[in-house]
Amino acid sequence: MFIRFITTGGTIDKIYFDALSQFEVGDSQIKHILTDGRAEFDYDVVSLLQKDSLEMTDEDRKALRNYIENDDAGLYVVTHGTDTMPETAESLLGMNAKTIVLTGALTPARFKTTDAIFNVGMAVATVQTAAPGVYIAMSGQVFEAGKVRKNREQNRFEQLL
Amino acid sequence: MFIRFITTGGTIDKIYFDALSQFEVGDSQIKHILTDGRAEFDYDVVSLLQKDSLEMTDEDRKALRNYIENDDAGLYVVTHGTDTMPETAESLLGMNAKTIVLTGALTPARFKTTDAIFNVGMAVATVQTAAPGVYIAMSGQVFEAGKVRKNREQNRFEQLL
Amino acid sequence: MFIRFITTGGTIDKIYFDALSQFEVGDSQIKHILTDGRAEFDYDVVSLLQKDSLEMTDEDRKALRNYIENDDAGLYVVTHGTDTMPETAESLLGMNAKTIVLTGALTPARFKTTDAIFNVGMAVATVQTAAPGVYIAMSGQVFEAGKVRKNREQNRFEQLL
Amino acid sequence: MFIRFITTGGTIDKIYFDALSQFEVGDSQIKHILTDGRAEFDYDVVSLLQKDSLEMTDEDRKALRNYIENDDAGLYVVTHGTDTMPETAESLLGMNAKTIVLTGALTPARFKTTDAIFNVGMAVATVQTAAPGVYIAMSGQVFEAGKVRKNREQNRFEQLL
Repeated sequence: MFIRFITTGGTIDKIYFDALSQFEVGDSQIKHILTDGRAEFDYDVVSLLQKDSLEMTDEDRKALRNYIENDDAGLYVVTHGTDTMPETAESLLGMNAKTIVLTGALTPARFKTTDAIFNVGMAVATVQTAAPGVYIAMSGQVFEAGKVRKNREQNRFEQLL
Repeated sequence: MFIRFITTGGTIDKIYFDALSQFEVGDSQIKHILTDGRAEFDYDVVSLLQKDSLEMTDEDRKALRNYIENDDAGLYVVTHGTDTMPETAESLLGMNAKTIVLTGALTPARFKTTDAIFNVGMAVATVQTAAPGVYIAMSGQVFEAGKVRKNREQNRFEQLL
Repeated sequence: MFIRFITTGGTIDKIYFDALSQFEVGDSQIKHILTDGRAEFDYDVVSLLQKDSLEMTDEDRKALRNYIENDDAGLYVVTHGTDTMPETAESLLGMNAKTIVLTGALTPARFKTTDAIFNVGMAVATVQTAAPGVYIAMSGQVFEAGKVRKNREQNRFEQLL
Repeated sequence: MFIRFITTGGTIDKIYFDALSQFEVGDSQIKHILTDGRAEFDYDVVSLLQKDSLEMTDEDRKALRNYIENDDAGLYVVTHGTDTMPETAESLLGMNAKTIVLTGALTPARFKTTDAIFNVGMAVATVQTAAPGVYIAMSGQVFEAGKVRKNREQNRFEQLL
């Protein structure tokens, strides 16, 4: 089994700079999470973008789709900011023979208490057990692209009715 | 979605007692892991056993199977010691309309660095995406019961050839 | 032994708000740190301010000094933002029979990797072993008020020569 | 300022071996703690013993005393198992011009929740602020050697009356 991880930024990789008293997107935490999780499969990590998801443009989404379409892997986990994760998931629909799972975090992976590790665990399991397609693994649940929204008031993902 | 978690002991729930300078199975860490993971689905946790998996007997395995067979849920995550997890998984084969995922940890969940959170994330995703059946989610991979062993020298789970 | 902890804000208590993608000062982490540190002495925690230290005004410093001068305790640990900690320390000089130790953190206490716990441990030991006076416990060192500065380029505290 | 750290084993450095379902003393956690604590002073770490403190013999204590007596540093932090820490502290009394602080942990430093970091922070502050002598920094308090015991029922250190 080979999984290609693509990082695009978002809260999961946020770091704190004291000088600025501000968060910025830092190095990807994916390798740390997979090492701590004792993951024993082949993978690599491609850093495509380092953006807050509110700053993701249509061009960024096209670049992501192009990257995956022209790439030879079958399984993808994409880490992404949470605010526009559903939009990006929809923009990836319709590629044959690819399983793509988007995940991220509501709290940065560098925090003591974070959903990042749990979410990446979910994404890694989903990408290898679900049928080809596009999914979001957040809030302890696996959603199909196009059928999920982020409820910002409740700070969680939920099924579109 | 409703998931019933059944805890049976094992490294994942180990605690350290200074007085004895010794590890013993402590309270289940499942609720902490699900809360930190921001899981937003219905679940409960049943503590069936608190044993090292090397001490699991055939009676224990029958009791676990009986519990699930006579229970009305459809999705189960069973936390279990790693040494005999494959045996217990096999002993649960052949129940209709139940999806059962066993997981655990090589390092206790109470440690700073642990595979417990990642593994429970994998199990939660697997139980909701895989077809009915019995699975083990460990070492970053989802295995079918009967087709997996623990490689004790390498301290990891691998596919039976 | 009784220690009064006074919190004024700063990085040590910073929390991350996903909605804003921004850090703000949150609830004090002092009780968590003392509980995890298995501290067995009498104490209370007074939350006087919740500010970045760059926003501390002369009025804020007077209020802090007044609070301590008119209070009946002898031992104080003050948590404070790092940028103006030396100024605040100096503003507290000259009170008789009070031992006051300022500390804080370069990385928020809620992070997995943080200097907050270590620093509070240092402050707690200093306040009970040092002679009455005003100190800063940061960067693994105990400095006297008036003889210390924050080196912002190096992000550390150092003795004034 | 130069501090020599001497490690002798004990709970602070305990590690968990899954194969044995057992704790053993592992590599010293001191460097990790000082790095995370952003300590900026000169130090080294000497690993003298790797023992549970219940297994410490009179010969071990003599070896520790000899080591310090014949060493040229002035400031020492000794990490030690908690059960016989008071005995070892007493055995180090009476050396001129040396400040020696013993500390350790009730829960291993590798745990998510541990008193190790807080305790080492206390020891580092004590060794640089207290008068020459022998001290124990545990339970949030600094005790003089010969005036402290471990209350095993309560799992804490307390002043001898």
